[in-house]
Amino acid sequence: MNNFGLDIWANKNFIIEDGEIKLNYKSMPSLLDIVNNIRANDVKGPLLLRFPHLVKRQIKTLYNYFEKAIEENNYKGKFKAVFPLKVNQFPAAVEAITSQGAKYNYGLEAGSKAELILAMSKVLDGANITVNGFKDEEMLTLGFIAAHSGQNITITIEGLNELETIIDVASKSNLKVPNIGIRVRLHSAGSGIWAKSGGMDAKFGLTSTEIIEAIKLLKDANLLEKLTMIHFHIGSQIADIAPLKKALREAGNIYAELKKMGADALSSINIGGGLAVEYDQHEKSHARNYSIDEFSSSVVFLLGEIMDRKNVTHPDIFTESGRFIVASHAVLITPVLELFTQDYQEKLLNFKDTNPPLVEELIELNRLLNNANCIEYLHDALDHMESLFTLFDLGYIDLQDRSNAEILVHNIIKKALYLKSANPTNELEQLQIKLQERYLINASVFQSLPDYWGLGQHFPVMPIHHLNTTPLRAASLWDITCDSDGEIGFDPDKPLYLHDVNIDEEDYFLAFFNIGAYQETLGMNHNLFTHPSEYTISINDSGYNITNAVESKSILEILESIGYDKHEILNQVKNKLANASFITEKEKNDTLLQLERFLYQNGYLRTTN
Amino acid sequence: MNNFGLDIWANKNFIIEDGEIKLNYKSMPSLLDIVNNIRANDVKGPLLLRFPHLVKRQIKTLYNYFEKAIEENNYKGKFKAVFPLKVNQFPAAVEAITSQGAKYNYGLEAGSKAELILAMSKVLDGANITVNGFKDEEMLTLGFIAAHSGQNITITIEGLNELETIIDVASKSNLKVPNIGIRVRLHSAGSGIWAKSGGMDAKFGLTSTEIIEAIKLLKDANLLEKLTMIHFHIGSQIADIAPLKKALREAGNIYAELKKMGADALSSINIGGGLAVEYDQHEKSHARNYSIDEFSSSVVFLLGEIMDRKNVTHPDIFTESGRFIVASHAVLITPVLELFTQDYQEKLLNFKDTNPPLVEELIELNRLLNNANCIEYLHDALDHMESLFTLFDLGYIDLQDRSNAEILVHNIIKKALYLKSANPTNELEQLQIKLQERYLINASVFQSLPDYWGLGQHFPVMPIHHLNTTPLRAASLWDITCDSDGEIGFDPDKPLYLHDVNIDEEDYFLAFFNIGAYQETLGMNHNLFTHPSEYTISINDSGYNITNAVESKSILEILESIGYDKHEILNQVKNKLANASFITEKEKNDTLLQLERFLYQNGYLRTTN
Repeated sequence: MNNFGLDIWANKNFIIEDGEIKLNYKSMPSLLDIVNNIRANDVKGPLLLRFPHLVKRQIKTLYNYFEKAIEENNYKGKFKAVFPLKVNQFPAAVEAITSQGAKYNYGLEAGSKAELILAMSKVLDGANITVNGFKDEEMLTLGFIAAHSGQNITITIEGLNELETIIDVASKSNLKVPNIGIRVRLHSAGSGIWAKSGGMDAKFGLTSTEIIEAIKLLKDANLLEKLTMIHFHIGSQIADIAPLKKALREAGNIYAELKKMGADALSSINIGGGLAVEYDQHEKSHARNYSIDEFSSSVVFLLGEIMDRKNVTHPDIFTESGRFIVASHAVLITPVLELFTQDYQEKLLNFKDTNPPLVEELIELNRLLNNANCIEYLHDALDHMESLFTLFDLGYIDLQDRSNAEILVHNIIKKALYLKSANPTNELEQLQIKLQERYLINASVFQSLPDYWGLGQHFPVMPIHHLNTTPLRAASLWDITCDSDGEIGFDPDKPLYLHDVNIDEEDYFLAFFNIGAYQETLGMNHNLFTHPSEYTISINDSGYNITNAVESKSILEILESIGYDKHEILNQVKNKLANASFITEKEKNDTLLQLERFLYQNGYLRTTN
Repeated sequence: MNNFGLDIWANKNFIIEDGEIKLNYKSMPSLLDIVNNIRANDVKGPLLLRFPHLVKRQIKTLYNYFEKAIEENNYKGKFKAVFPLKVNQFPAAVEAITSQGAKYNYGLEAGSKAELILAMSKVLDGANITVNGFKDEEMLTLGFIAAHSGQNITITIEGLNELETIIDVASKSNLKVPNIGIRVRLHSAGSGIWAKSGGMDAKFGLTSTEIIEAIKLLKDANLLEKLTMIHFHIGSQIADIAPLKKALREAGNIYAELKKMGADALSSINIGGGLAVEYDQHEKSHARNYSIDEFSSSVVFLLGEIMDRKNVTHPDIFTESGRFIVASHAVLITPVLELFTQDYQEKLLNFKDTNPPLVEELIELNRLLNNANCIEYLHDALDHMESLFTLFDLGYIDLQDRSNAEILVHNIIKKALYLKSANPTNELEQLQIKLQERYLINASVFQSLPDYWGLGQHFPVMPIHHLNTTPLRAASLWDITCDSDGEIGFDPDKPLYLHDVNIDEEDYFLAFFNIGAYQETLGMNHNLFTHPSEYTISINDSGYNITNAVESKSILEILESIGYDKHEILNQVKNKLANASFITEKEKNDTLLQLERFLYQNGYLRTTN
């Protein structure tokens, strides 16, 4: 049976039971049950479901492994973590992160002014805030205000000019000076598609020469006591642990050197993010070559070793993993609206008394095709098809001839595929792609899977029901945007097979997993499709609660969000209709009401049946 | 002098004069003057400037060339055009499009429900609306409502199920039935990176067999009189005209065949969009191999020829070009915040009495480097640098030794580049990249140039002033997102050279051109950077007017837009500060006011000086 790689990517968060996919937690609800509950309230379109218990699980895993490593290695520093808000700033996600992280005093990281305000507003009392990215005087002053408000804030400087501005603000205000971190530029580079963060050409970080300058500036300004952290980040979704180990060795030595240079307040190394998530559905390629156990042990062991050798107190270890924490917590459910079959039905053949010679030949090829001649006849058929297309374009055959030819050639391909199914040639495999089924999904790839569009990132996808029957149709997925990039094509190397369902008679829902990191905030409003309707699902021993329901924007809200006056739009379309002639006044009023109702529905499709 | 490829991409819309880039229209204002005017009102961050006269120019060009071709070819059909809203739905863009298009009765195309409502609200009286993309019963009913309201609407069906729904709605309501178009699936495919729209595997369109079915369905429902259009689209940004000609031949024959089959109301061929825009700044690669003249002549001539041969009345020709119409109308201005020089200044060398042997060797290499030995010495230096990094990571040398080594090696590279500048080796060219200047721009690549991130699409970029001096610094551009993908790297094949400016003493603005198509609507809110501040610039004979000013969202508005209660956020951060201790009450109140002011500023950086 096909389990869609559940054992590879699902991390035991989901199981298949009774033909449905279920949450592997407490009352173990089925995704289909949750979806049906939500749709019972006439909510259509894609649904984004958040599971706070999966956030909790990841936070707990991160802390537990690091604390275990600290104990096992007799490490003297503490483990501390912050969540980088850029990975998901949505209210229900942040609520899940802070509430599930309360036990650990889990903090927040900000990379822009808006994120910093969010962090200052939402961080747990006493938890850490770190601030990365390029900053101006206003953003640095916000850091002072946070520190003065009693928050545990550390500003990572990305260049000497930021440090100069901090020194300037400190000299002209009486506000408390925040802790200062230095992002170091490492010669060791990362690996993976997000690897550009590391290396000497990286966008971020100070060189050795600049670090020495920074220490001098801090000393001269009497602020060296505020330098508490050094920070590095070798890239998101680290595939290979070797570059991380090199980076740790390098950063650890920089830390120890700075301590020797008099940076007495220095107490933390922030290793950034990068803990990878498994997105693959096929055994052959794994996203990372290490476990969280190896990751935490390596970090703790290496830092301890370097400090011991240089006789330096073990630093606290900060991490800023975000993808690892929230990727799994969100699942996107997309209804299938239609199957666009590539079948050309033989019953639609409509021959004439006299058919063009090449069509007559296709009829013969189709009739006489057998196991011995099928490759040769297939080649003939494909060649004839090309010729027939040309004849059509030049006006020599008509549309019915062309239709007959298309049906015959597809029939010949199907027969050849069947006859050679035990041992298909490369050519036949390529032809199979042309016969795949297209599943139209009620979602936008641009809005909900932007990393698929931008980076070719694969997300695990599978039906949430029908799982006790084997899926047989090679499938590609079409989204509802008016853009040909809105397609997840069938990939013979990583094939997706789905069920042959009759959408007019039954629902068919596909779920995309591990979409909780980055996808929401990067979501593009292509064709004005906006963030899907979202729900938080809190699972308990006897069932589950649905909270934080936010339906996808209505059409009027969408237009308002890009700057239109929604009342003006509503009035314009209603007035145009009101001026039209109707047979009865009732009919007019009903139609006006119907129009208005449509404008208050969300922008996605509603199944038409 | 470097004109940054202005003669290639600017289409004479801009000229360089007095060292500044100016609009080549009426009073010919300088971009710098416009920018300074806007910034005089304390607006900081990136600016998006719209020029309605450039929309007008493109609409006029499109209509004029097609009308010329129609006259020259004695073609009997009319030329009609609609603007596809997905390319830019922003209010000021749509206003420019409809107002500048009024003379031509320029219409609108919609690809989703929200776009359809926008089209119904904003289309010029009597102009055409076309509707593409996948539709449900609600969206199709909106088409009936538009038709009933007196609008010229044509619904393009993407599959037989949509036609069945139209027939169903027509049978159960008394609303006027909209015109119906059929998207045809062509065997001829497009070319270029957006080419997937064409071909037999394309996401959109009906096969010959399905078209014949559609005709039967329409006949049976007595709706054949509503079939007025066939539609195809071979892809955006068509690079090569050959596939378009093939597609025209194929679609033209389908049209003629349908007329012969009794589709008497059929009167239009919609050739979709695809007219390419020149984005290149370097002579060697042009985005398209045809002119608008050849494009329009080919379309008109080919369709006329096919119809004449089949004895069919010439159809009206519809186009849905969007990129061609609006790409040039918007310019993004980004202030440069800082230059992150890769220079390692010799004055920062700080040797010890006894330096590590490899550092001593670097000192000697640096001292003795000459034209004869420079390649050999360079190799030695790079090798030593690797070794020294390793020694540092293993704790054998300290941070000062590493800094000295970095400065010495960079100096050796610079000297070698200088000595071999007449005839650099491949290796030296690669090293040059490492010495480039990084310009930090106050903008987000994800928000403002999403096609650069997703598709690697290059947009012309150049400074708007300093143009009477030759730019000499090899430049890469960093944006202010906290993401290493937010970088436009230096490409030796398409090099960008910028000026060596002192940002502390003078402004330096870069402009990205041709960003008016798709970039705004695809803009991603990464790190919560939102749509830049925008302004419409209407140029007249004596100057220009700035209208439709919409400043980029304030920090509180940004947080509100993703679902936070902005008053709650404001109160939370203010309360935390209010509870802190201050020396004087005035200081407290001043700081509270300062905090509040920051929250009402937009989310981008303000230069710190």
